Amino acid sequence: MTAADWIAADWGTSKLRLWAMAGDGSVLAARSAASGMGGLSPEAFEPALLALADDLLAPGRATEVVICGMAGARQGWIEAPYAPLPWRPAAAGATTAPSTDPRLSVRILPGLCQDDPPDVLRGEETQIAGFLAETPDFEGLICLPGTHTKWVRVAAGAVTAFRTAMTGEAFALFAERSVLRHAMDEGWDESHFRAAVAQAANRPERVATDLFTIRARALLDPAPPGAARARLSGLFLGLELAATRGMWVGQSVTVLGSADLTARYVSALDTQGAAARPVDGTRLTLTGLCAARDGLRAAG
Amino acid sequence: MTAADWIAADWGTSKLRLWAMAGDGSVLAARSAASGMGGLSPEAFEPALLALADDLLAPGRATEVVICGMAGARQGWIEAPYAPLPWRPAAAGATTAPSTDPRLSVRILPGLCQDDPPDVLRGEETQIAGFLAETPDFEGLICLPGTHTKWVRVAAGAVTAFRTAMTGEAFALFAERSVLRHAMDEGWDESHFRAAVAQAANRPERVATDLFTIRARALLDPAPPGAARARLSGLFLGLELAATRGMWVGQSVTVLGSADLTARYVSALDTQGAAARPVDGTRLTLTGLCAARDGLRAAG
Repeated sequence: MTAADWIAADWGTSKLRLWAMAGDGSVLAARSAASGMGGLSPEAFEPALLALADDLLAPGRATEVVICGMAGARQGWIEAPYAPLPWRPAAAGATTAPSTDPRLSVRILPGLCQDDPPDVLRGEETQIAGFLAETPDFEGLICLPGTHTKWVRVAAGAVTAFRTAMTGEAFALFAERSVLRHAMDEGWDESHFRAAVAQAANRPERVATDLFTIRARALLDPAPPGAARARLSGLFLGLELAATRGMWVGQSVTVLGSADLTARYVSALDTQGAAARPVDGTRLTLTGLCAARDGLRAAG
Repeated sequence: MTAADWIAADWGTSKLRLWAMAGDGSVLAARSAASGMGGLSPEAFEPALLALADDLLAPGRATEVVICGMAGARQGWIEAPYAPLPWRPAAAGATTAPSTDPRLSVRILPGLCQDDPPDVLRGEETQIAGFLAETPDFEGLICLPGTHTKWVRVAAGAVTAFRTAMTGEAFALFAERSVLRHAMDEGWDESHFRAAVAQAANRPERVATDLFTIRARALLDPAPPGAARARLSGLFLGLELAATRGMWVGQSVTVLGSADLTARYVSALDTQGAAARPVDGTRLTLTGLCAARDGLRAAG
């Protein structure tokens, strides 16, 4: 294996992904491992990185490793303190992570924090930096769907505000662990999804009882396959749209993420008459890590 | 052990409780076991009952056993079909459960179902029957807090409508299994609870983002001990009050249950200016089972 010029890494709660970069900016190798931050004590990060990257490191010099994501959380490798708003990608600093192998020089990028209302994100800032590197003049609202979906406002090249909804996590908890799991099958009924989104977005005050209706309906008057799962997803997504209405109303929303999740959010926003544009977010993390590394080098 | 005249049983998802009754209506013995419906296949119910009650059964005759709760669910001992609304306790029928031991004669009481909006309950109908046996002239709204809280309207001696909120289950899932578990401690801050109830009851459309604020606050500006747990409980309870507002507004609510749960609901309703009266619900299930058995005997 050719040694990497430097290494970019996205170190999340459940997964470590890394890219070995050549001096000309091309990708020599892309790898991933299940050694997510969630299962590691601070001293386990360096061995986990070496397990995946040892043959990518040149002997006799320190290879630069730039990391974004939960590795910088308080329970991660080392805390990379949150950067405040407004935040411009180019101005990002980084926190040096302790390592003993002389072939490593590791820095972790900060997440973002907002004072009022209190909110935090970590990892998504690098996807946003990647998007802004490709679209420097962008102004508006970015939605990044996921376990915790982020709604991020960008103005004059800076993140100025954001909000988090736990929609993906709530859906998984209710679908897999609540009494509603008995009503779930593997299908997906888009019309039930859209009806539930609209119902919760327009009548969020009813969601607490609408949830159990999914169970009662399955017992009394079985719905078509895929209806229960779609309704559950739709209720939580509609509640999220109700909470973020002040951000997206009257806007065209840019939805960054995987194809399936962005399609779901575009459909949900469409029930509210809101325009949305899906953007494939998979490559943006690497673009953002490259931009962050350029920024770090420019800053010396 | 003296043989029972008959046996009353409350067979829930996680627990079996039974009472051996004497001919004069007194309780000879009260017992419980962890053999809840959730862990039993249909053929395992009779052995589970015998394991707890064998020495209470007279030889040479069939002892009557009257059961309420999830043992009558589709996945239980045998399905005891739901009774429709309006429902009067005295008119309750029962479903005979199959048993092979000649010392057993087992009947399971029905749950209740509502067509529109679709809803079901199973077990609470017997607590309500017990309450109405003690308070025959009661008219109004009963709240039965629990894993799934039930709000039940009673008029002219009959249950006329009800709604279910999954508040207890939602709280447990988020407190124990979501990212918010990192913010939880064992304390309880009542002022944070009341503030969160009011916030969600008055602004239910914000709950989707207010939930993650609990996590962000813990990271950025740690709240006093007990605040995070109380806020999480308060948000879900406030969302429940928003969903049930049409039932409780302008009413005095009778809250049936354990002392800690009824106190929490009384406090929550108080934030909305609603009067509520706690009633110790622990004995009402047995009272209801006795009333149901009287009804079954009167019906032949």
